[in-house]
Formats: sequence, C-alpha cells, structure tokens
Amino acid sequence: MADKITSRSQDYSQWYIDLVRSAKLADYSDVRGCMVIRPNGYAIWEKMQAALDAMFKETGHVNAYFPLFIPESYIAKEAEHIEGFAPECAVVTHGGGEELAEKLYVRPTSETIIWASYKKWIQSYRDLPILINQWANVVRWEMRTRLFLRTTEFLWQEGHTAHATKEEASEEVLRMITIYKKFAEEYMALPVIMGRKTESEKFAGADETFCIEAMMQDGKALQAGTSHHLGQNFAKAFDCQFQTSAGELDFVWATSWGVSTRLIGALIMAHSDDRGLVLPPKLASRQVVVIPILRGDKTAVLEQADAIVCTLKKHGIPAFVDSSDQNSPGWKFAEYELQGIPLRIELGPRDLAGKKCVVARRDTLEKTELPLDDTFSMQVSEILNSIQQNLYDRALSFRNEKTVEVKSYEEFKTAVENGFVIAHWDGTDETESKIKEETKATIRVLPEEQEYLDRYTMMEPGVCIYSGRPAARKVVFAKAY
Amino acid sequence: MADKITSRSQDYSQWYIDLVRSAKLADYSDVRGCMVIRPNGYAIWEKMQAALDAMFKETGHVNAYFPLFIPESYIAKEAEHIEGFAPECAVVTHGGGEELAEKLYVRPTSETIIWASYKKWIQSYRDLPILINQWANVVRWEMRTRLFLRTTEFLWQEGHTAHATKEEASEEVLRMITIYKKFAEEYMALPVIMGRKTESEKFAGADETFCIEAMMQDGKALQAGTSHHLGQNFAKAFDCQFQTSAGELDFVWATSWGVSTRLIGALIMAHSDDRGLVLPPKLASRQVVVIPILRGDKTAVLEQADAIVCTLKKHGIPAFVDSSDQNSPGWKFAEYELQGIPLRIELGPRDLAGKKCVVARRDTLEKTELPLDDTFSMQVSEILNSIQQNLYDRALSFRNEKTVEVKSYEEFKTAVENGFVIAHWDGTDETESKIKEETKATIRVLPEEQEYLDRYTMMEPGVCIYSGRPAARKVVFAKAY
Repeated sequence: MADKITSRSQDYSQWYIDLVRSAKLADYSDVRGCMVIRPNGYAIWEKMQAALDAMFKETGHVNAYFPLFIPESYIAKEAEHIEGFAPECAVVTHGGGEELAEKLYVRPTSETIIWASYKKWIQSYRDLPILINQWANVVRWEMRTRLFLRTTEFLWQEGHTAHATKEEASEEVLRMITIYKKFAEEYMALPVIMGRKTESEKFAGADETFCIEAMMQDGKALQAGTSHHLGQNFAKAFDCQFQTSAGELDFVWATSWGVSTRLIGALIMAHSDDRGLVLPPKLASRQVVVIPILRGDKTAVLEQADAIVCTLKKHGIPAFVDSSDQNSPGWKFAEYELQGIPLRIELGPRDLAGKKCVVARRDTLEKTELPLDDTFSMQVSEILNSIQQNLYDRALSFRNEKTVEVKSYEEFKTAVENGFVIAHWDGTDETESKIKEETKATIRVLPEEQEYLDRYTMMEPGVCIYSGRPAARKVVFAKAY
Repeated sequence: MADKITSRSQDYSQWYIDLVRSAKLADYSDVRGCMVIRPNGYAIWEKMQAALDAMFKETGHVNAYFPLFIPESYIAKEAEHIEGFAPECAVVTHGGGEELAEKLYVRPTSETIIWASYKKWIQSYRDLPILINQWANVVRWEMRTRLFLRTTEFLWQEGHTAHATKEEASEEVLRMITIYKKFAEEYMALPVIMGRKTESEKFAGADETFCIEAMMQDGKALQAGTSHHLGQNFAKAFDCQFQTSAGELDFVWATSWGVSTRLIGALIMAHSDDRGLVLPPKLASRQVVVIPILRGDKTAVLEQADAIVCTLKKHGIPAFVDSSDQNSPGWKFAEYELQGIPLRIELGPRDLAGKKCVVARRDTLEKTELPLDDTFSMQVSEILNSIQQNLYDRALSFRNEKTVEVKSYEEFKTAVENGFVIAHWDGTDETESKIKEETKATIRVLPEEQEYLDRYTMMEPGVCIYSGRPAARKVVFAKAY
C-alpha cells in the first residue's frame, strides 16, 4: 500500500495531492506543469469519454481531428481570442532542423484552426449545420499547476458547430450545457448549477458563455464544463459566409463547448475521503473486488470467489478477485479503499459454510451480509445503484448547507471563505473586479435553472452588497479552483 | 456528389488523392504537412481504435497518458534514438511568453518520456511487468507528405512495456505483432507478411524490430505495424534497475509497438476502386444504406425503408435511410459508392408489391433481389460477411500474383517495379544499401511465418542476386510507401 494520506481537516490541498499520488492516479513529469495520467486515473477518463461520446452521438454529433499546430496569423484573426490566449501558449519555432518562417502555436483551443477548414467546407445553407467534436490534447502555459485541475497540457473534448441562424446556435449552446449537467449529475454524482458567466468571465471570443459549477468539499467552486455562443465572431474573422435559403449571403453562426481531464479532479474533490478515492460506480471500470480470506479449505474459498466474479460479470458488473498471498486481507481492504473500488466482498470459510458473504460499501464503509443465492447479482447491483445515488445526495446536501445568502459586504467576506454566497450585484464589471481584488471571490454563475432560481429567489431585485446601487438580480459568488 | 476521381490506371497517386478528398476522408490544412481528419475518415479510425483497444485489454494491457513535450536532454539519453529522431522533430522554444531554459521536443515517439516515469515506478520484480498503451498524437517533420500515409502530425497508439527478463520481452514483442496481424487480416481484410526488419530498417534504439507488411494495388509495400524489442537500451539510458526475485540488480527489459492513422491509407489503397472507397464491413460505422425510389405511393415506400433500417439495427447491423428529395436515386447510388458503404438496398413501389428489395454489394457491384421476409436480416448479415471475406481473398490473390521470385539482378530490377520480389540476399548492409540506391527498393521483411517461408522456400541457401556471394536465405524486396 502507498504512503499515508494527510487528512482533509489537517490540510485539504495536501490531502488532494497525497490521494492523487497514493492511488496512482497521476504524477508530475519532469516537464514543467505536465502530468502523467497513470492507468488508474486514465481508466476514469475512458469511462467519462465513453459516456460523453455516446451522448454527443445521440444528439447528432460526429468526431473529427484537426491539427495540433496553429499558425500565428490564425490566432491573431480574432482580436479578443489572441489577447486571451497568446500569452499562455507554447510556441514552436523550429521544425526539421530549421527555423520556421511562421511560428506555430500549440493549440490552447481549436476555434481558429477549425474555422479555417469550415470556411472551405461551407458554401450554402445545405452544408449546415456542422456538428463536430474533437477529443484532443491542448496546452496552456500555467504558472501554478495542480494535478488534473490545472496543468500545462491536458486532455479534453471540444465541440465546434456551425449554424445558419443565431437561434439554432443558441439551441445548441443550451443543448450541450444540458448534456454536461446530465453527465455531471448522473455519472459523476455531482450536483451542478447551470447558468451564464459574466462578461469578464466568459471565453475569449464568445458572445456568451454558459457553464456548470460544482462545489468541492472545501466549499470552493469548480467550473466543470462550458458552452459558448460565438456569434458570428469567428466566421467574420475567417470570412466564412454562406448562401441562405433565401438566396442571400450571411456569416455563419458558431458554438464551441468542452470538458477536460479536470473533471477527474472534480470527482476526487467532491466525493473522496481520508482513506482515499471514492468513485461513483458508473465511472468505476472495476466496481467490485472480491477478497478471499484464506484460512482452512483455501481451494473451496478460491473457487467460490471465482464463481462470484463470474456471476457478477455475467450480469454486467465488472468484478475481480485479489487472491494473491503476498499481502494480508487487511492490507488489501485498505488498498482497494484507497483505489476507490465501490464495493468489496469478503469471503472466508465461515461465509462459505453459511452460503453468504460480507459486502462493504466504499461510500459509507458499512458492512452487511449477503446470501449467496439467486438474488445475489441483483442485490449487488442494487447496492451499486444506491452508492451512486447516495454520493449525489450527500454532495447536494453538502452544497445546500454550504450555500448562504448575505445582505452586507461584511457578511459576504466571512461567508465566502466557507462556501457559495448568494448576493445582489449591481451588474458592473467594476464591482465584480473590486470584490475579486479584495476577497479573491468571483461571480461563478448567473443561474438559469428554475429550481435554483426559486430556491434562492435569485431574480428578486435589491441592493448591491458592495456598491449599494440597485441590483436587478442575485448571483452566485465563490472562491474557485 | 464530389468531383470526378482520376482512374487508378491513369494515375494511381492522383486517384488516391482524389478519392481521399472526394469521399471527405481528410484534407490538408494550412499547416505544412498537417492533415484534417474529416468525420468520414475519423469514423474509420474510431472503429480501428475500438477493435485494437479491446485486443490490447484482453491481453492485459491498460491505457495511460504521458506528456506531449520531451525535454531535449531526455531525447539525448539514448544515442541511436536521438540520431534517428532529433532531425525530424518540432521544437518548442518559448512558453508563456518567455524563452525556455531547455528546449522541448514535441514527441515523435514516447520511449524517453515514458522511461523517465518507469524509472520512478520500478524498484522490484514485483512491480513488473508494466503493460501500458497510449493513444496519442505524434509529430515528425516530413518533407514529402501524403494524406494518412505520411503527415507531420499523425494519430497512433504506442505500447510501452517493461519486463524482468529478456524472454518475457521477446514473448511480448511477438504477442503484439501477432495481434496486429490478426487485426489487419480479420478487420482490415488485409493480408500481411509478418517478420523481422534488417538492421538498417529497424527502429532507432531497438535491438530487433518485427513488422507486418502489406501490398497495395500498385504493387508497393506498406508497413502496417511494428513491434520492437528494445533490450535494456532505454533502461540503461534512464538508469532503470530493479531487484530480481533472486535479490540481484538488473536493468529492465523493454518493448514498444505501434500502429497509426496510416492504416487508413493502407485500407484505401488495398481495396478501393475508381468509384471511390471500398470499406470492409467490420470497419464501416454505417454498413447498409437504404435508398427509397420515390414513385407512386411514397409513404408506403418510406415506411418500409424505415422498417428495414429498424429491423437491421435490431440485429446489430448499422443501417440508415437517405430519403432526401434533394438528390436523385442515381446521385445517391454514386455518393454512397464513393463513401464506401458496404451494402446498398434499393426499394421502390414494385419491390414493395413483390415483398422484396434489391441489394447491391460495394465490393463486386453485383445486384441481387432479396425477399423481405423473416430471413432478411440474416441474409444481409451473410452478405456482409461474404464482402469481408471476399475483400481479403481478393487482396491475397492479388499479392500472390504480384509476388515473384528472381535469380538475377536484371530480373530483379524489372520485377520490383511491379510488386514484391523474393530473392537471395547476402545479409550485408552494403548490398542492401546499394540495391536501395540503384532501384529505390528496400528489404521489407525477413518473414517469420511458416506458411510464407514454405511457399517461397525462404530458408533455402543460395547466391545473392546482387553480390554473387553466398546467401543464407531469401528475403522480400519491394518499393514502399
């Protein structure tokens, strides 16, 4: 088993780092800010990819792949875009032993290289919509890095769509942020607030950015996915016009949307505990570990352990046995708790005699006995579903507890150290940036979901907590990763 | 429909380019030598990935992800490796607006960055074997590029394994080249010759390279996959030692193996024709297109078309209808032939009345009638299997026809313009490089498969066709992509 993990209460940041390394999820490499995603971590990404990819395809999207390198002149075509991204790019100046005539940027995001292609592909409304997604690596030079959450290179998917009308693009933006919300809640067991970003927090080059925001166990916010309405900005930058069905010329409307390997960081920080990783069963490539307690008739126990795995697999539950005699059962219990296997089955000679086994849930650490009869797989499956649901419910209760509404800036400053804060804001960049400067808290989201709006009477006008000026609505503030 | 495709007989190279672009498989980007893999092309890669990934996992491999950037000092650690790769690398000199203290190479392959991690992970024989695969993009600065076959950036998988003994590494090298052969033959319908590379053709840093070689329709060879025995070379370069079960210290043994998006090029060049792409059904994401002939009672025809698709999907056959009235049936026939959909179903009012439909195979262009009864899906499935088998058989006959054995250098020079040539070789680098210089043909493979060895009595000693010196065996020469 790996080294001891610092407890969350002692040092939350150190707990996270210890956990990621002990559970062998990721390592820093010797390349500044670049991580190695180890097999245990990559397996989570593969489950995420499979679920998201299926949801993208169900909504008519197809995958493609565009170049890693972006010519400097492309990045420069969209004014806000270059201002936002150029300073954080890695730049290739030499290739094949020679200095390049034009510098190449390693993609920080692919709008520009993709719209250079779309310009060639789109002539008429008949060529629209284009609904393309790309799974890729991107590079953004980061000063302070943290495994999964903020690394110089990371993996992500980026959707880039082209539409004939503004309305169609708006629908796509909402469709995709809704898919992200569904994925976060149903697969990651992570409650999120869906809504809009303020002007200053939106994507460089977008007219509007929608996001989903989640709360971590330290009360901080983590942006878990974004969907951008790019208007006609990139079409204009790349002179991408099309003939409308009415026979006129217009610029194409665009969206882009993405989630990245930082979701793995979100998953860890939302559910895990001082023993290690806690994984929602839907994202666990191995849901059940069977640990034989080898006393007395070892053969019979091992045979029964294999039989259990076989039965579970037949019912679509990925299970495995650890029958190695190199380590004790106690060592194994701790190791698989660290790795976040959702369910542990313990099986000894006495269990065998009683035609039962002991099952231990990773989320609550509860142990119960389960009869080894015809209902076994179904019962295991029910426990797994219950773990999935419990993780969501627990995270939602936590978020509700840690969300407070404040009426004054004094209250605000204390509350924002501890969780999400709902407060009236006057809608100005000035107030937003002053609050950020003074407290490091930002406006995370202008919620769009009725349930959330109702819960906190978000649309009620009032007085800005900072400026004292009239405020049209409340917004959600938090410190963020 | 797209532009006209040049015929193979007129200009094979132009035919390939025309096909790739007309079928919307890939495009050049404005970044020198970098391609855009369009959705039709990427869908083939996704099918390839799924099949290979399953085969890797069945044999105990797991996926992980290592950094895109490799510090210059890493590349330099293995002498042959830097000599082979450094000249063709893209180099990052600036990041985050500043010049870097150490240049970063965009990975041309990942042995060095991976072995820097393995050194940290491996202490004892208990940590072995490590069986890791990575799906990634790599960059090799190419002077002459060709879509899919040779591009500056391409996608691939690279397996990197670490073992306690030389023998175990040897087994792994053979296991993986055998998996590649199985994949090429069973999925790509592409017969390949499995064997060893000569010293001069092996991977920079390997002790031994195994490969699979395929013949294209112009008689040229294409290397479709490689598996390298890296000996202890990288372990020594990165000082990666481990404690053996006997308690001694030894360097770790290594293998690496990979296939790339050039397989898509191989697939096209092996099977396609002057009408466009021909895809083996196992790699077609859409196996059947139904084209309604809309005369008379349109509704009844459209309903039946949908019913056919529904039935086929229920039986696991991916099918779709093109019922658009924008284009004629004839236009659609040509379009889906271009796209390589393996089977076309035509359905008109007369077919409906006769409870039948017309099916047209993409491989032979044969049309037959099929009754729309309970056996329908099974019959379609059988035709798809027969297409898969026919493509393989056809490619194998072609290879056999285009493979000749020669006894003199005069014969050799003529024959090698036309296909594979079996000839005696004296085993020296000198002869090999002279022949390459004079004819541009290279030794593709020293076959290892009994069937192939027997067929051409490869192991029979004789006289080198070039030098006249004694030759221990015959080898396979060809011009290559």
